[in-house]
Amino acid sequence: MPTLRDIGEDELIHRLTQHLPHRSDVLAGAGDDCAVVKGSEEPVLLKTDAIIEGVHFLPDARPELIGRKALARVISDIASMGGEPCHALITLVLRPELEVEWVEAVYRGIAELARKYHVSIVGGETCRGPVCMISVAMTGTVAGEWISRSGGWAGDVLLVTGRLGDSIQGKHFTFEPRVAEARWLKSFHLPSAMMDLSDGLAKDLPRLARASGVEFIIDEDALPCTEGCTPAQAWGDGEDYELLFSIAAESVDELMEEWKWEFDTPLTKIGSLVKIGAGRLPSFESRGWDHFAKDA
Amino acid sequence: MPTLRDIGEDELIHRLTQHLPHRSDVLAGAGDDCAVVKGSEEPVLLKTDAIIEGVHFLPDARPELIGRKALARVISDIASMGGEPCHALITLVLRPELEVEWVEAVYRGIAELARKYHVSIVGGETCRGPVCMISVAMTGTVAGEWISRSGGWAGDVLLVTGRLGDSIQGKHFTFEPRVAEARWLKSFHLPSAMMDLSDGLAKDLPRLARASGVEFIIDEDALPCTEGCTPAQAWGDGEDYELLFSIAAESVDELMEEWKWEFDTPLTKIGSLVKIGAGRLPSFESRGWDHFAKDA
Repeated sequence: MPTLRDIGEDELIHRLTQHLPHRSDVLAGAGDDCAVVKGSEEPVLLKTDAIIEGVHFLPDARPELIGRKALARVISDIASMGGEPCHALITLVLRPELEVEWVEAVYRGIAELARKYHVSIVGGETCRGPVCMISVAMTGTVAGEWISRSGGWAGDVLLVTGRLGDSIQGKHFTFEPRVAEARWLKSFHLPSAMMDLSDGLAKDLPRLARASGVEFIIDEDALPCTEGCTPAQAWGDGEDYELLFSIAAESVDELMEEWKWEFDTPLTKIGSLVKIGAGRLPSFESRGWDHFAKDA
Repeated sequence: MPTLRDIGEDELIHRLTQHLPHRSDVLAGAGDDCAVVKGSEEPVLLKTDAIIEGVHFLPDARPELIGRKALARVISDIASMGGEPCHALITLVLRPELEVEWVEAVYRGIAELARKYHVSIVGGETCRGPVCMISVAMTGTVAGEWISRSGGWAGDVLLVTGRLGDSIQGKHFTFEPRVAEARWLKSFHLPSAMMDLSDGLAKDLPRLARASGVEFIIDEDALPCTEGCTPAQAWGDGEDYELLFSIAAESVDELMEEWKWEFDTPLTKIGSLVKIGAGRLPSFESRGWDHFAKDA
């Protein structure tokens, strides 16, 4: 009998979600950064995510940063659909011997970031467990069309915000979700496809290409690397929480020019989407983060 | 420094949620079975909940029942606010050595119950962890007013659906969320306060009374016990997932009469809400389920 290690994360998700029934008010189900359901005036985005002690953070990390990270990851997903975060529910699984002060500090980290991004923490749940876990469910709204990961076309240019790689040195705790950048892109240079990079370019770019029914080529030397980091790390490390998006080739120069006036955040062309059969994997070995892989 | 064991679940939740800022579209934040936010025509209910291996289920339990339980608990919360469940997001934390078939069976249990209650599973997340955990976030709608746990009045009669106690023998896996009963109550005999019994009457009834600003008295001999079960177990065991509600004394006889024609589910008067100072704790020792208590 195959185990999760044998089939990996993407195949598991495919198997679990392929036969799910849907109500008529579901605009987009599993398979994108968020689900989309009909709302009053605007579509509503729904997203859930969890971070786990020993996987996403170590027990000795600053608790404020642990809480911050749990919320920031989900805000990043909402942003990558072109949305605004609204309401969050927090489930805390906690070891009973934890100090109350530690848990309060986790929540301070959550609340501070919530305030910054105008998110209301409307409820949650606490229960005990053998390791700590913070699960965040969030709603968002998106004006008009949302940006899926499935809208890319062969010929579109691929871009990423910020720098990639070695996030484990600190950025995975302190990153700013690219809400402002995504909002601006949606308003002025609508990407054909967009997602946030959580499992690494190596894992996430193939997901975007597959969802869009195309393949990709990457300019390995163009990858924007975190200082002291190799292109291979930028490709495979993960937890960057930057935006990866595609846009029609003829719009790229104007976008790059305007971007410089709007943001200090770097924006880099890293390759293109190409038609099926014309794609080429880069020479790096890493295949990105898979939760169930042998080395994970 | 105090630990979670020292202060317990309710005090922890109070400390974490007392200073949270709220957007103007939040109608009810933490403190009830669900949060309530403004929707298009109807208020929207939001709820999250998690079940954990070794706490809420054992590794050798039937996986379909584990999945079913995870979803049913949240449907029960939506029902207890007088709402209809709509969309769910599922976060699975899984041990990598698990067989794929086991996880698919968990999801079959989720999907089957989702179909029955017209819930769409719109997305989720999978990640690895040292123990299995299923976290469910759900949206619901509620026509007009929702039923909170804070609306009870001194003089109201307390009632519970079904039978209580010893749910661990099987009912905690197979219970039917009381969606139909709650919908009927809301339409014909609006309870002043309602909640679902997850941590046991001993823990949940004081929560309802406290939220309503009253106390309670219980008729110990009236508690509807699961077959083979003592009133003390009915009071303290937990995981009953029955409705606990209060209603004006003058409406009770008519309600009880009509109920018999509508439902096979038992409905039992178990006591009343009384003003502060007039309450009396029952003679049972159990104080219900606390996730962080020494004996939990």
